[in-house]
Amino acid sequence: MTTENKQEGKPVDIVRRHWLAASAAGAAAGLSGFSPPGLAQGQPKPLPSVASFKKASGMIVHSANGIETRRAAFGSSGITDADLLFLRNNIAAPNAAIVENPDAWKIEIDGVTSPTALTVADLKRMGVTSVAMVLQCSGNGRGFFKHKASGSQWTVGAAGNALWSGVPVRDVVAALGGVREGMRYMTSTGGETLPPGVDARGIVVERSVPWNAMEGAILAWELNGAPLPLAHGGPLRLIIPGYYGVNNIKYVKRLAFTADETQANIQKSGYRVREIGKKGDPTQPSMWEMNLKSFVTHPSEAGETLRAGLVQVRGVAFSGGSPVTGVEISVDGGKTWQAAEFFGPHMGRYAWRQFVAQVNLPAGKYAITSRAIAADGSTQPELRVENERGYAHNGWRDHAVSVTVT
Amino acid sequence: MTTENKQEGKPVDIVRRHWLAASAAGAAAGLSGFSPPGLAQGQPKPLPSVASFKKASGMIVHSANGIETRRAAFGSSGITDADLLFLRNNIAAPNAAIVENPDAWKIEIDGVTSPTALTVADLKRMGVTSVAMVLQCSGNGRGFFKHKASGSQWTVGAAGNALWSGVPVRDVVAALGGVREGMRYMTSTGGETLPPGVDARGIVVERSVPWNAMEGAILAWELNGAPLPLAHGGPLRLIIPGYYGVNNIKYVKRLAFTADETQANIQKSGYRVREIGKKGDPTQPSMWEMNLKSFVTHPSEAGETLRAGLVQVRGVAFSGGSPVTGVEISVDGGKTWQAAEFFGPHMGRYAWRQFVAQVNLPAGKYAITSRAIAADGSTQPELRVENERGYAHNGWRDHAVSVTVT
Repeated sequence: MTTENKQEGKPVDIVRRHWLAASAAGAAAGLSGFSPPGLAQGQPKPLPSVASFKKASGMIVHSANGIETRRAAFGSSGITDADLLFLRNNIAAPNAAIVENPDAWKIEIDGVTSPTALTVADLKRMGVTSVAMVLQCSGNGRGFFKHKASGSQWTVGAAGNALWSGVPVRDVVAALGGVREGMRYMTSTGGETLPPGVDARGIVVERSVPWNAMEGAILAWELNGAPLPLAHGGPLRLIIPGYYGVNNIKYVKRLAFTADETQANIQKSGYRVREIGKKGDPTQPSMWEMNLKSFVTHPSEAGETLRAGLVQVRGVAFSGGSPVTGVEISVDGGKTWQAAEFFGPHMGRYAWRQFVAQVNLPAGKYAITSRAIAADGSTQPELRVENERGYAHNGWRDHAVSVTVT
Repeated sequence: MTTENKQEGKPVDIVRRHWLAASAAGAAAGLSGFSPPGLAQGQPKPLPSVASFKKASGMIVHSANGIETRRAAFGSSGITDADLLFLRNNIAAPNAAIVENPDAWKIEIDGVTSPTALTVADLKRMGVTSVAMVLQCSGNGRGFFKHKASGSQWTVGAAGNALWSGVPVRDVVAALGGVREGMRYMTSTGGETLPPGVDARGIVVERSVPWNAMEGAILAWELNGAPLPLAHGGPLRLIIPGYYGVNNIKYVKRLAFTADETQANIQKSGYRVREIGKKGDPTQPSMWEMNLKSFVTHPSEAGETLRAGLVQVRGVAFSGGSPVTGVEISVDGGKTWQAAEFFGPHMGRYAWRQFVAQVNLPAGKYAITSRAIAADGSTQPELRVENERGYAHNGWRDHAVSVTVT
C-alpha cells in the first residue's frame, strides 16, 4: 500500500501559508468588508424542477444548478432539513427515472482484488452505518471575494449538516479482497448523462482523493432518514466526511482505487487553489479536506434591526481536519471576543457544532461574527486567502453580520 | 419545594409488577402472536389536509387524527424525517393561520414568582437549546393487544426520533423568579379550539407532569431544523424528553406550576394504566415516563421474502428512564439471542439508538425481534402487560417480524 502524500492531502496548510503573505494587504479593507453580497436582487429566480421540493423562502437561487440556504433559514437544530439543503451540480442531474427503483442502481468497484459490479440491493446486504457530515461547496463564501471570481456567488449557505446513511466503503472493499497494491487514490465517477460528441474528460464528474479517505467514506442511499433524492445524488452517493462537496460524487456509478489521479478536467485543472489570474494545474492543491470555519446564523441577514436587550447569538462551527473545540463571538467586528457555548447533540467530528452566546445589546450598530478554535490550537483566520476561484473562504471578517439595534 | 412522588412518577414499575403476574398466562400465546395487525386493508385512507406534506407511501392512515410511520419507512439515519413522523391529535388542530406568524404566538406562564404572558419572539431572546427526543404515543403497539383496546391500532410506528429546538423551560422559569412554593406539577394547556357549549374539562388537552420534569423540558418552535409545522404543534410545543407523546402539549398556550394535577378528563381518567374492563381514575398510574423498548425496522413488513445470505438486521432502542446500553436480536422468535451493535451518532439519552446485527440466513422461516438492555440492568420484557387501553407495550414477542428466506 502506498504512503499518504501529506503535502497533496493538506490544501488547508498551503492556503494558510498564502494567507500569511496576504494578511497585511487584506487588513486594510477593515469593516468595509461587511457588505452582504449574493442576496437576491429584484425578482427571485424560481426553483429548478429537480429542486422543486425545496422551501423557496429559505433558499437563494443563483442558477438551476446552484441554490444556497439563506443564513436566516438554518434554524437551531443542528441538522439541515433536506428541503433547505443547498444544491450544486457541475452538470445537470440524470433523468429522475434512476430514483424510481433505487435498489437496482449499479456501481462498478475496481482497483480491488476482486473487481465487480454491485447493485444498491447488494450493498444493503453488506453493511450499514450513518454519519453526520457537513457538506460544503468549495466555493462557499465566494461572494465575499472582490475580484469577481467565476462561479456561484455563494455567501454562507452553500453548506449544510446532514445525516448520510449507507454502507461503509471499507466493508465493501474488505468483501472484495482489499485494495490492490500500488493504488494511491480513490477515484469515483458520477452517473450524469454526458452530451454526445464531446471529450468526456472535459465534462465528466470524476474525482480522485487520497485512497485512505475510504476509511470514513460511505456509499449512501439515505439523507436525514429518507431515500436520497435525485437532487442530492440519489440513488447512490459517495460521502467522504471532512471533504469538500465536489468529492462526494452523486449518482456514483464507479468507485476505483487507482495508481494516479483521474485526467478529468474537474480534477486536473478544476478545484485547484491558485493565485488570482493563474490557470489551474495538477501541481496546485486540490480541494480535498475542509478547513476550520464557523459563521453566525442568528442574527441573520445583514442590515437586520433588533430590539435592544438580550440577543442569543447563534451559529455553527466545523472542520474537515482537527476537530472544533471552541468558538468565540464578537459583536464589534473583532475588537473584543467572548466565549460561546455549544448546544444540542454532538453528532460526531464531521458534523457541525451549534454555538450560542447571550449578549446584551444597547441601541447601536454591531458587526457580529465568530471564530472557531480547533483541537490542534489553530484558530479560524481573520481574512480570506485571495485565490482565482474563490475557494476555501474561512475568514471571519467577511462572514460577519451587520445589525442595527434600536 | 415539594418532594417527588416516586410512585406516581414511575408507571413503568407498576406496569412491570402487573407483568410478573400476567407472564404465565401470556406465554401460552407463543409464536402465534406474530401476526401483523394494523396494516391497511383494501383502499388506503388519504392523508388529512393538516398532514398533506407527509410522504403517503411511508404512512399508515388510521384516521384524520392518527397516522403512523410504516416500519419499512424508518430508514437508518437515526432521525425521523418530519415528512414521515407519526401524527396523533386528541382533537383537531387549530386553524393554520396560527403558524403564519409564529413569533406572535402567546403563552401564559403561571405558578412562578412573576407570572406573565410571553410571545415566541420573547422566548427566542431568553435562551436556546436543541434536544433529540423520541416522541411516542402512549398506545404505540396497541394493535398487538387481543382485547380490541379502544384507540388507533398502532403497530410500531406511533414513534419517531426528532430534533426539537427552543428555549429551556428552566431558563424561562429562572427569568420569572422561579417556581412558587408548594407547586408539585407542571400543567400545560393546548391551544385547540374547543366546541362551544361543552364542558371544557371533558375535552381540553391539558396535562400535568411532576414539576421537576421541567429540568429537561423545552418550549420548542423547531422540528429537525425547520419551523414546527401545525401538525406537530406549531407555532410552539412543550417537549418533555422521556415522556409519552400526550404530555408534549401542542400549540401550548399556558404553562403553569400547580399544586394539584389538572381536573381535565385527559389527565383524571384518560391515559391511566388499569386492568382490562376497569374505568380510568386518578389513583392509577399516568402515562408519564416511557419504558424501555426496541423494535426491528429491517427486515420490515411481516411476511417479507428475502434472498438467502447476509441480512443486516436493524432497529431502534430507547427509554424514558435508565438509558439503553445494549440490544440483542433473535431470528428464532426468542430461543437464541446475539448481541447487536449500535451505529450512527449518539444524540443523547432521550434519542433512540440505532442497532445492527449481521446474520447469515439460509432458506427457511424466521421470527426476528430485538430486546433492549438498560444501564440499571433491566431488560425489555417478552410479553405485553394486558391493560384496558393498550398502553406502554414494550414486549419483544409481539414486536417481532416474520420473514421467509428463499
